[in-house]
Amino acid sequence: MVIILMGVSGCGKTTIGKQLALELGLPFFDADDFHPKVNIEKMKNNVPLNDSDRLPWLNILVEKMIHWDKMGGAILACSALKESYRTILSSTQTSISWVFLSGTFELISNRLKARKNHYMTTDLLQSQFEILEVPKYGIHVNIDNSIDEIIKHINLKLKLMKQSVFGVIGLGVMGKSLSLNMAEKGLNVSVYNRSEEGEEKVVSNFINENDTFKNILGFNDLKQFVRSLEKPSKIVIMVKAGEAIDGVIDQLTPYLTIGDVIIDGGNSYYEDTANRVGYLKSKGIHFVGCGISGGEEGARKGPSMMPGGSLDSYQKIAPVLELISAKDKNDQPCCSYIGPDGAGHFVKMVHNGMEYAEMQLLAEVYAILKLSFANEKIADILSDWHSTDLSSYLLEITINILQKKEKNTYVLDSILDVAGNKGTGSWSSKAAFDLGSVNTIMSSAVFARYISSLKQKRKSYSSLIKQSNKEIDVPHIKDLENAYRFARILNHHQGFELIRLASIEYNWNLNLSEIARIWTNGCIIRSNFMEQSVEILKEHETYFEDTVLFKSLIIKESNIKECISYALKYRIPLDTFWSAYNYWVSMTTENLSANLIQAQRDYFGAHTYQRKDDSLLKFYHTNWI
Amino acid sequence: MVIILMGVSGCGKTTIGKQLALELGLPFFDADDFHPKVNIEKMKNNVPLNDSDRLPWLNILVEKMIHWDKMGGAILACSALKESYRTILSSTQTSISWVFLSGTFELISNRLKARKNHYMTTDLLQSQFEILEVPKYGIHVNIDNSIDEIIKHINLKLKLMKQSVFGVIGLGVMGKSLSLNMAEKGLNVSVYNRSEEGEEKVVSNFINENDTFKNILGFNDLKQFVRSLEKPSKIVIMVKAGEAIDGVIDQLTPYLTIGDVIIDGGNSYYEDTANRVGYLKSKGIHFVGCGISGGEEGARKGPSMMPGGSLDSYQKIAPVLELISAKDKNDQPCCSYIGPDGAGHFVKMVHNGMEYAEMQLLAEVYAILKLSFANEKIADILSDWHSTDLSSYLLEITINILQKKEKNTYVLDSILDVAGNKGTGSWSSKAAFDLGSVNTIMSSAVFARYISSLKQKRKSYSSLIKQSNKEIDVPHIKDLENAYRFARILNHHQGFELIRLASIEYNWNLNLSEIARIWTNGCIIRSNFMEQSVEILKEHETYFEDTVLFKSLIIKESNIKECISYALKYRIPLDTFWSAYNYWVSMTTENLSANLIQAQRDYFGAHTYQRKDDSLLKFYHTNWI
Repeated sequence: MVIILMGVSGCGKTTIGKQLALELGLPFFDADDFHPKVNIEKMKNNVPLNDSDRLPWLNILVEKMIHWDKMGGAILACSALKESYRTILSSTQTSISWVFLSGTFELISNRLKARKNHYMTTDLLQSQFEILEVPKYGIHVNIDNSIDEIIKHINLKLKLMKQSVFGVIGLGVMGKSLSLNMAEKGLNVSVYNRSEEGEEKVVSNFINENDTFKNILGFNDLKQFVRSLEKPSKIVIMVKAGEAIDGVIDQLTPYLTIGDVIIDGGNSYYEDTANRVGYLKSKGIHFVGCGISGGEEGARKGPSMMPGGSLDSYQKIAPVLELISAKDKNDQPCCSYIGPDGAGHFVKMVHNGMEYAEMQLLAEVYAILKLSFANEKIADILSDWHSTDLSSYLLEITINILQKKEKNTYVLDSILDVAGNKGTGSWSSKAAFDLGSVNTIMSSAVFARYISSLKQKRKSYSSLIKQSNKEIDVPHIKDLENAYRFARILNHHQGFELIRLASIEYNWNLNLSEIARIWTNGCIIRSNFMEQSVEILKEHETYFEDTVLFKSLIIKESNIKECISYALKYRIPLDTFWSAYNYWVSMTTENLSANLIQAQRDYFGAHTYQRKDDSLLKFYHTNWI
Repeated sequence: MVIILMGVSGCGKTTIGKQLALELGLPFFDADDFHPKVNIEKMKNNVPLNDSDRLPWLNILVEKMIHWDKMGGAILACSALKESYRTILSSTQTSISWVFLSGTFELISNRLKARKNHYMTTDLLQSQFEILEVPKYGIHVNIDNSIDEIIKHINLKLKLMKQSVFGVIGLGVMGKSLSLNMAEKGLNVSVYNRSEEGEEKVVSNFINENDTFKNILGFNDLKQFVRSLEKPSKIVIMVKAGEAIDGVIDQLTPYLTIGDVIIDGGNSYYEDTANRVGYLKSKGIHFVGCGISGGEEGARKGPSMMPGGSLDSYQKIAPVLELISAKDKNDQPCCSYIGPDGAGHFVKMVHNGMEYAEMQLLAEVYAILKLSFANEKIADILSDWHSTDLSSYLLEITINILQKKEKNTYVLDSILDVAGNKGTGSWSSKAAFDLGSVNTIMSSAVFARYISSLKQKRKSYSSLIKQSNKEIDVPHIKDLENAYRFARILNHHQGFELIRLASIEYNWNLNLSEIARIWTNGCIIRSNFMEQSVEILKEHETYFEDTVLFKSLIIKESNIKECISYALKYRIPLDTFWSAYNYWVSMTTENLSANLIQAQRDYFGAHTYQRKDDSLLKFYHTNWI
């Protein structure tokens, strides 16, 4: 961008231009220095230049500006009094910011008189005022002010005129982090937050706290916010999932035009997202439901991103999303087009369900170990695990948590055992029920959180139970380690099965290996095993089809069995480990007892049954009585 | 009802009337036999009767008809040529069917001539034709036909004119059974089924197969079906839940008027039902979502009924629903107004979820026992249980199933172990996730069915597992019996908790004890324990608040632990037993390991946590790194 300071001689173009150049770190040029020799001679001899004299000069300036723009921008002082001169200067792709320095004849005349060695006479100034065609655009600054004031004013206006590449609506933890991530990557970002009661200062506080970033513009006015965005506008909504999203969309759409892109970066329900994709498509607006994982830190430094919607929509935002996302071990972005409709949010939902289970498995490991060991010792045991293929982000933070002390006591020990939940875990389980997908592990983790919330009842019921005071045998750590390894594999198996079945049901054509890849960094469930999963799911439809992995599960069955027996012995709730174990045993049992269920259903409801010894297409009914 | 055969002398009133009386099993009367003496004298002397002569006679007939109607109806031959005579005869509450026997003068004149000993002359006949005012209503029969033809015609018309008390749409297993149940209780019922390809003969086959019931009218035309119903019309829809219901409602409403009642007797999703209640209310039509349990036999002989919607709507159908429902041990109907909106279908949905769990528990009992015992022996063990407080309908049919042989082999042994499911089980689980209700037991039962359906995969994976050939210890039957008792109580606890939480969430004000009462008969989960539940839930908010019951659970904990250990040892999937056990242990554990979950959530998502040593209203955040 080239900033052109224009106005009559003596308005302060050079002084202000040099000062501005200093502040913005841009080179300063004076247009007069680029006159061809013949013009310089004429001026020396007090022969006025006519417009045909000026044409070669203006053309030189155009070429210079193209060059300066490529080099990162410049500031040019150039009187450019006539609109025709300015038209020539604008006849290039270079983005120009016009700054018109305006003052009265008297003011400038007096200033000129005070200058020494200036060839300008009062008559000449008078003629300049006569020639001047005041531009109807650009930044207009009254020079009857201190230089500092003038510079400040220009800076502010320049900032406001700058078109942002991306807009962010909603400055919660995730919205803030994502905005800073973009700003740090050099993108101009506009941010908006509603100014309801209690939120009036959210935007200004955010801008003030992050004033080292000059490329963030804050707005409390949605229309101004949208105006600040380059076209087509790209806006990511980071507000609470649910009706709030529709509210924002309704407020936003009047200011949008065909081809603009809205991204929902929250944890919206995938069916809602599919509806919104369809609704906005009918208005010519792109809608991308983009799961974003990584928490506050991920959003700030590089999250894992799961965009869904039309491929066409994704491509319009891909450069930015891929720029700000985490990178995998091969430096590829942890962001990849997932699939149509709500596929992105579906995959994010399952990610969170798997996260629930991974967290609950660690909580159950902790439940077993804390009966025998102090926090530091548990951290040591888990650190050993973390140095193996069990390494993961969640294991790492668990070790840190176990070690964290405040005022000489472990923080963990004083935290209330009531776990919150925000929907995506239970949604995963519900989706599994709808899809006929076996999802025992993450369901048990969600239920475990529900049970945790019944603290008062648990306290009251437990008081009725006679507490055992038998001595506790130390658990076998190697069993536990392998049980944990076993249960994690089963959790990944069930999670990816849920995605696979959804892909079939909804014709999404999802790439499981690619989903595992974008989960290898940036997201909460990133782990060594996720790295392995990229390869496993490239080769096999499910984990169980990988015979090496399958055999390793067979070997570990005895380990998890031991852990469950241990938990039974000491009354330790261990539902998520059990769910993994029971699923494994069920899936490796040829004949279950479901024949009785079918008999019962046929008995009371005439639902019929199939026979072991006949075609599956044949349905039998027995008169049982 | 009194059927009056009318027409001129010689039209055949007596002959046809006597024949019809024979067919319908009703007494036949001749109006002429009720003339006062003075009239008889006049007639003997060929003095014609005038209208004032006839008045006392008509009044005698009115009184007789009231009496006959009370006695079950009659057939009356009465010329009733003038409308004014008929008006007098109709001046009572007695329901009358007019049958006008019509023939030409020539025909009747010829017939009269053929009769011997008849005092009628051609002149008199001529004067009767002159007096005759042909009624604009009633059944008109041309007598120029054989007596059989005439009788058949009258019968058909009588049947069509009869207004039905209830209409049934959809003649599947449940629709048929419900219609027969109503018919058997003496109600006139109209039935309708669509006549799409393959269903053309559903109605006629049903009518033919059940021709002992004279009070069922069949229709393939929806308009005629509605016309056959008394006002306000009461129609129960027995079609597949989902969009089909809305389709039927859309087809039906043009023929309905304000105040009519539609009942959805299928397993509709409760939120759909709530929407339909609202939608139809706006049209002035009552909509009752009525859960019906009991399978084919229950629907036929008396189901358990769970009607929901407005109380006003329910009251319009209460007499019929309570008449056809099962009766509890105090002979009270197993039908009771549940609550507003979709409350009836919600409660039915939970009933089915509990049914899934009850069935799965029996399947798991069977899975354990079948490793050591033959079917007959298992049936013996379960029969012992059935003679205790464990007695239930599902246990009873399981015993019958275990004993059932065809061609000398047990039917059960040849049934494929792939269990079907139809939605309500998974809906219960999904509702539990939405309501934050802990629903591990029925969820595990639903997932067990899903796993059963993966037969091919199970077969293939199990082939990779080395089968153990160690000898199997016989299970401890008393442990198993108490474990089963324990798990069933927990299942009822979770089920009623789900209902209780829904009642709070939706302001339904449900009566848990009353719900248990209507489940004591007619439905699939009726049992001795359900009888106990009526009292428990009258006294306590939940089962756990009953200290006697709670203590009995404490005692049985060791039994279920033994069974789980046994299952672990022999690789028997036992998820539903485990779910009951683990829930119990969790709910009686004061301090769970959920503090770690909260720490993790605060670590990566700044979700904050509460502390054990501070107010629950205070939320903390730690800078973990």
